[in-house]
Amino acid sequence: MMMNIYRSEKNPIIKPENIRPFLSNFEVIGVFNCGVTKFNDEILLLLRVAEKPIGGSSDEILIPLLNSKTGSISIKVFDKNDPSIDFSDPRFLRSTREGCYLTSISHLRIARSKNGIDFNIDIKPALFPEKEYEESGIEDPRITCIDEKYYISYSAVSNITGITACLASTYDFRTFKKHGIIFMPDNKNVVIFPEKIKSKYYALSRPASGEFFVNDIWISESSDLIYWGNHKRLMGTRKRYWDSLRVGGGAVPFKVDEGWLEIYHGASEDGRYCIGAVLLDYNEPWKVIARSKEPVIEPEIDYELNGFFGGVVFTCGVLYEKGVVKIYYGAADTAIAYAEVRLSDILEKMEYQAGL
Amino acid sequence: MMMNIYRSEKNPIIKPENIRPFLSNFEVIGVFNCGVTKFNDEILLLLRVAEKPIGGSSDEILIPLLNSKTGSISIKVFDKNDPSIDFSDPRFLRSTREGCYLTSISHLRIARSKNGIDFNIDIKPALFPEKEYEESGIEDPRITCIDEKYYISYSAVSNITGITACLASTYDFRTFKKHGIIFMPDNKNVVIFPEKIKSKYYALSRPASGEFFVNDIWISESSDLIYWGNHKRLMGTRKRYWDSLRVGGGAVPFKVDEGWLEIYHGASEDGRYCIGAVLLDYNEPWKVIARSKEPVIEPEIDYELNGFFGGVVFTCGVLYEKGVVKIYYGAADTAIAYAEVRLSDILEKMEYQAGL
Repeated sequence: MMMNIYRSEKNPIIKPENIRPFLSNFEVIGVFNCGVTKFNDEILLLLRVAEKPIGGSSDEILIPLLNSKTGSISIKVFDKNDPSIDFSDPRFLRSTREGCYLTSISHLRIARSKNGIDFNIDIKPALFPEKEYEESGIEDPRITCIDEKYYISYSAVSNITGITACLASTYDFRTFKKHGIIFMPDNKNVVIFPEKIKSKYYALSRPASGEFFVNDIWISESSDLIYWGNHKRLMGTRKRYWDSLRVGGGAVPFKVDEGWLEIYHGASEDGRYCIGAVLLDYNEPWKVIARSKEPVIEPEIDYELNGFFGGVVFTCGVLYEKGVVKIYYGAADTAIAYAEVRLSDILEKMEYQAGL
Repeated sequence: MMMNIYRSEKNPIIKPENIRPFLSNFEVIGVFNCGVTKFNDEILLLLRVAEKPIGGSSDEILIPLLNSKTGSISIKVFDKNDPSIDFSDPRFLRSTREGCYLTSISHLRIARSKNGIDFNIDIKPALFPEKEYEESGIEDPRITCIDEKYYISYSAVSNITGITACLASTYDFRTFKKHGIIFMPDNKNVVIFPEKIKSKYYALSRPASGEFFVNDIWISESSDLIYWGNHKRLMGTRKRYWDSLRVGGGAVPFKVDEGWLEIYHGASEDGRYCIGAVLLDYNEPWKVIARSKEPVIEPEIDYELNGFFGGVVFTCGVLYEKGVVKIYYGAADTAIAYAEVRLSDILEKMEYQAGL
C-alpha cells in the first residue's frame, strides 16, 4: 500500500542553476541535503552546495582540496589513465597509493523563505571548510534549536582524517562558532535531539565499521553537547528491506504522542536511497518502538532518479506542523525537493515490534 | 644503529600451555597483549587469553560467539569450501553475506608476580565477554591508575557492532565495573593518560576510516573518563618507515623530562608489527615532539617471528623505573615476552622534528 505523498509542483525547489558558485573557476554541481529550521518569521535552509573545478583535459580529473594553512582551495590533478586509481564512482576516486579523494568540495549556505517553497539564497557561504579535517568539504547539516541557540551538526571529509562528525553553533545565522569534531572517523549523519531527556542530551550518529561492514545508527549521550559517551547501537539494517545495506539519521527527531519520530534514510544493495521513519521511546530513546516497513519516500520522479548520483532521496531536516511532516530532501545528489506526508500515514504503516 | 635491548632469557615468559582454558572443549591458542600495573607489592598483568573451539571436521571452521542473552558461548559452523567466504587470515573469516567473524574468542585474565618475570596465573577470567558488542571477545587491555582506581581500556569485537573501545574499572582487581563503550566503531588501542593535564583527562585511540584507509592515532579529552570530546588527529603513518600502514597507542604514557613518552605500535604493508616511541608535549599532549626513526623492538627472535600470527611484537603496557623501560609485549599473537630498554637509548634515536 503506497504512502500518500504530496510533492511540490515546483520541485525541485532549489536547483544548481539557482546557486552562484562561490569559488572562481568552479561550477555548482549540486545543492542538496539541507538542514531546516524556523528562524524569526522565516523558514531557513542550510544548503549543502557542492562545487567542482572547471577545466582540465579529458584525461584529467581535477580534485579540489582546501589548504588549511592558507585557507585557499588548491587543485590536485589525477590521470584518468592511471590503472592504480578507481574512477568508477562520480563522487570520488580511490587511489591505492594515495587513498580516497572527493571530486567536488561542499560548503554550507543559507536560503530563506516566507512560504517554505520560494527561497532567497545567500551569495556567500555560511560555513566553509577551514580545518585539515574539512579538506574535502563540509556536508549534510542538521539544525537543532535548543534554548534559542542553533546547533549545526555536519560531516567533514578529508583524505587525512576520513569522515568526521562535527558541531557548530549560532544564535543569529550570521556568525558561527565551530566546536570541532564530536565523533571520530568514520562517522556521519549526526542529529541532535531538541531537548534534554532526563537531564541528558542525545544524538544519533552513523559510525561505520570498515572491518565488519556495519553501517548502523547509534545513540550517544552528553551533558554539554561537546563531550559524548554511553554510546549504544540503536538500530541496524534489515535484510530484504529497503534499508538492507546502510541506515543513517536524517531529520532532527520531533515529539509525537507515541514517542520521538525520527525520519531517517536507508540504502539497499543496489545503491538506492529512500526515506523512512523510526519511532523511539520517549523517555528511553535508545529503544525502538516501530519502524517503516516500506519507505515514506522512494526515488520515483525524474529529478530523484536522474542526476549527479541518481536514485537517491535523502533528508537532513523536516518541519512538523499540525499533523503534517514537511520534508526537505536532496534528490539525486543534485537538487532540493519538498514533500508533505501526514504523520498518521507514516505511523499507520509502521511495523510495531520490539527488537528490530 | 641498533637499539640495545635486553630480552629475558625466560622469553616467552607466558605461553599458551601455561594457561588453563576457561571454556570446556576449547584450547588456548594465545596469551598476549597484556596490560601491566603495580598493585600492592606485586606486578600485575591483565592477559588477553584467546580460546578456540576444539573439534569440527577438516571442512569446517568453528566460530565461537557469545550469546549475550544467556551468557553462554555458542558455536557457528562455516564450510571451508564455501567460495563466498575468505578464510585466508587465520584470525578471522570474511563472508560476503554475513560479514566478519573472529576464529577465537578472548577474555582478560590476571597474572601476578613478585619479580616481574615468573607469574602466577588466575584460573578464571577477570573480565569476560557479556554484552552484544563483546560477542567475539574482549581484547588488548591497558591499565591506567588514577587516584588509586584502576581504569581498564579494552577493545570489544562483535559481528553486530564492529570493533569498539570500552572502559572498565576496579579498585582491587577482584570486582570490576564495566562502563560501556567510550568510542564508537571502529576504534581500538585506547590508552588513558595517568593524570589530568590542565584539568582534563586525555586518551589516545585509533579510529579507523574504512572509506579513506586511515589508521592513525587520535587524542581526545574528557572531564570524567566517560564522556569524551575535542577529538584531534595526533599522528599518522609514515611512508617508507616501519610504521607505514597503521599506528596505534601501546602503553599508558609516562612522564619523562622531555614530555610524555608513549610506546606505540606500527605496522608496515607486509603485516609486520613493531614497537616504537613518540614523545608528546607535556602540557599540550596533542603536539608531537619526536618519534622513533627505527623500531625500539622489531620481530627478530623465533617466538616473535613464528606463531598464530607471526612477525608481530605488540605492547599494551610498560613499567618505567630508574631510566629503564620494562616492556611486556605480545609475540606473534601467541605468547608474552619481556624486554628492557634504557630510556636514554630510546630518546637518543628519535627524530626531533615538528609536523611529523
